[in-house]
Amino acid sequence: MPVGTQGTVKAMSPDDLEEVGVKIVLANTYHLYLRPGHEIISKLGGLHGFMGWSGPILTDSGGFQIYSLAKLRTLSDEGASFQSHLDGTTHFIGPREAIEIQQALEADIIMAFDECAPFSADYEYVADSVRLTTRWADECLKVKEGDDQALFGIVQGGMYPDLRERSARELVPMGFDGYAIGGLSVGEDRDIRRHMIEHTVPFLPVDKPVYLMGVGKPEDILDAVALGVDMFDCVLPTRNARNGYLFTKEGPLVIKNACHADDDRPIDQDCACYTCSRFTRAYLRHLFMAGELLAYRLNTIHNLHYYMEFMKEIRNAIGEGRFPEYRNHFKGDNE
Amino acid sequence: MPVGTQGTVKAMSPDDLEEVGVKIVLANTYHLYLRPGHEIISKLGGLHGFMGWSGPILTDSGGFQIYSLAKLRTLSDEGASFQSHLDGTTHFIGPREAIEIQQALEADIIMAFDECAPFSADYEYVADSVRLTTRWADECLKVKEGDDQALFGIVQGGMYPDLRERSARELVPMGFDGYAIGGLSVGEDRDIRRHMIEHTVPFLPVDKPVYLMGVGKPEDILDAVALGVDMFDCVLPTRNARNGYLFTKEGPLVIKNACHADDDRPIDQDCACYTCSRFTRAYLRHLFMAGELLAYRLNTIHNLHYYMEFMKEIRNAIGEGRFPEYRNHFKGDNE
Repeated sequence: MPVGTQGTVKAMSPDDLEEVGVKIVLANTYHLYLRPGHEIISKLGGLHGFMGWSGPILTDSGGFQIYSLAKLRTLSDEGASFQSHLDGTTHFIGPREAIEIQQALEADIIMAFDECAPFSADYEYVADSVRLTTRWADECLKVKEGDDQALFGIVQGGMYPDLRERSARELVPMGFDGYAIGGLSVGEDRDIRRHMIEHTVPFLPVDKPVYLMGVGKPEDILDAVALGVDMFDCVLPTRNARNGYLFTKEGPLVIKNACHADDDRPIDQDCACYTCSRFTRAYLRHLFMAGELLAYRLNTIHNLHYYMEFMKEIRNAIGEGRFPEYRNHFKGDNE
Repeated sequence: MPVGTQGTVKAMSPDDLEEVGVKIVLANTYHLYLRPGHEIISKLGGLHGFMGWSGPILTDSGGFQIYSLAKLRTLSDEGASFQSHLDGTTHFIGPREAIEIQQALEADIIMAFDECAPFSADYEYVADSVRLTTRWADECLKVKEGDDQALFGIVQGGMYPDLRERSARELVPMGFDGYAIGGLSVGEDRDIRRHMIEHTVPFLPVDKPVYLMGVGKPEDILDAVALGVDMFDCVLPTRNARNGYLFTKEGPLVIKNACHADDDRPIDQDCACYTCSRFTRAYLRHLFMAGELLAYRLNTIHNLHYYMEFMKEIRNAIGEGRFPEYRNHFKGDNE
């Protein structure tokens, strides 16, 4: 499970990541293209050298951030013109640029440039979005040089099962190294999301990784794993950590709650992370209430450790043929 | 050299502190009294248990923060009434309360309650401030229980050499475990500060530690060491770190400056800290410009390491009888 980064996983050093068991990080092409710029990163040894992270790195295509952050976006068959959310300057990224940037960043897994349709988009809009995404996927394959980087295609299709199927059927013959399901976790409810995954995975090759982008809560991950998804990325463990929302096997813990003020227990008695092995809830609450920077790091260490353990348990359960039981048991703990 | 804390040295974990060579931390009585409250900290194993820091801890008396942060302060012979800067609630701290709080916090070195006169205070005000400080110092000695904690007296006297002398002469016969010079670094210039230290140290016992509170820049520390000061505390290394102002042997480095954007060198080629051994100026600049939390931690690690090495060099130079040369050489590098 890659954890996201704009040049660092927020509040974490590379050593912190290693210690919690993170194996791969995700870096945002859009952010790094705008700041500090891919040329600077390329000059400084690519993302691995720049960040001091020697493990695998996946870069997204930039498509999602252009859709969610950039201003005055205009699409053409060639790509997207947009204004930077940082300073309003005008930029253009199409499939060629997305691949060139990701090659300069030297990520290990790179993503085809796609268009992420809004949740509320009508059928016609999404159908055209799928057409663009297919066209750009083809262009990405042609532009990409060398064999150092794996290139994944991204299935779009909004909330329309037949467009999801069409997108997958168009991408698979192109022979990507893996396939992502994009355009989910954009506001749809859990049942619709499950429905869309159900109508995508069967059209993807079983011998290639299937990656669900931007998902999600533990229960969403269990849903998706049951439907055949192999990989995830999500801001949830890190963002929630910074908001003082901590994951535990007994359910969520909101550290600012007054009940923790003099609680000398760790966040989770059974957790082996640095935070739980060293600090009490009372201390973590104090740091959070005082706005101390250490709060963000300690909370993030705990939540990432929780997710890494969770994914490990899923892998073990699958390996031992008891995933359905694991999933049922997990739900029982949390609902 | 203790580094300051309101329950944590900002952006640092206890392990970070150990790794940069910090031996003792300072905690602010005023801050911890208001939040989370000394009763909670006492219940959770004192400050050592609460913070997860097993090394020595020094607490200040609260006097300086009541002077610099609290609102609607009124003084009497018994102590100070003030309003919390956090929520406007009214509180009273006198010598008795200051000692009781510091005993609840279980610091290893505690400070007598004092009054820190403003830089611009006239002679009469400061004379009365010295009278109060002496009165309170006496009360602190009477209130303090047990032998677990060292108690230091604080010399005041504003910018008046004769009042400095009077304050020292009144405190020394009381037999404190150490003596601090308070009320400096409040706006006076370097020459005045040096002058006040010069008119205080000779009246303090040579066999007790002399501690200059709230100082300072490397050159101020060298001044004070030359005049016989043994201990210091200061926010400068940590606060400057968070502002991207980094100490090096070649002089200060402002990390946001554009010249560092693609510089693949560490902050300081000869520095052995984690930050310098792992990250380039270009990466640190990127983190700082992007407001990434990791920037604050990495910068703080470097600046604290710089100060710890600096203090070690001073101790070595004194031990080897070459402090004057060291001081001259140091100034030559920085001016």
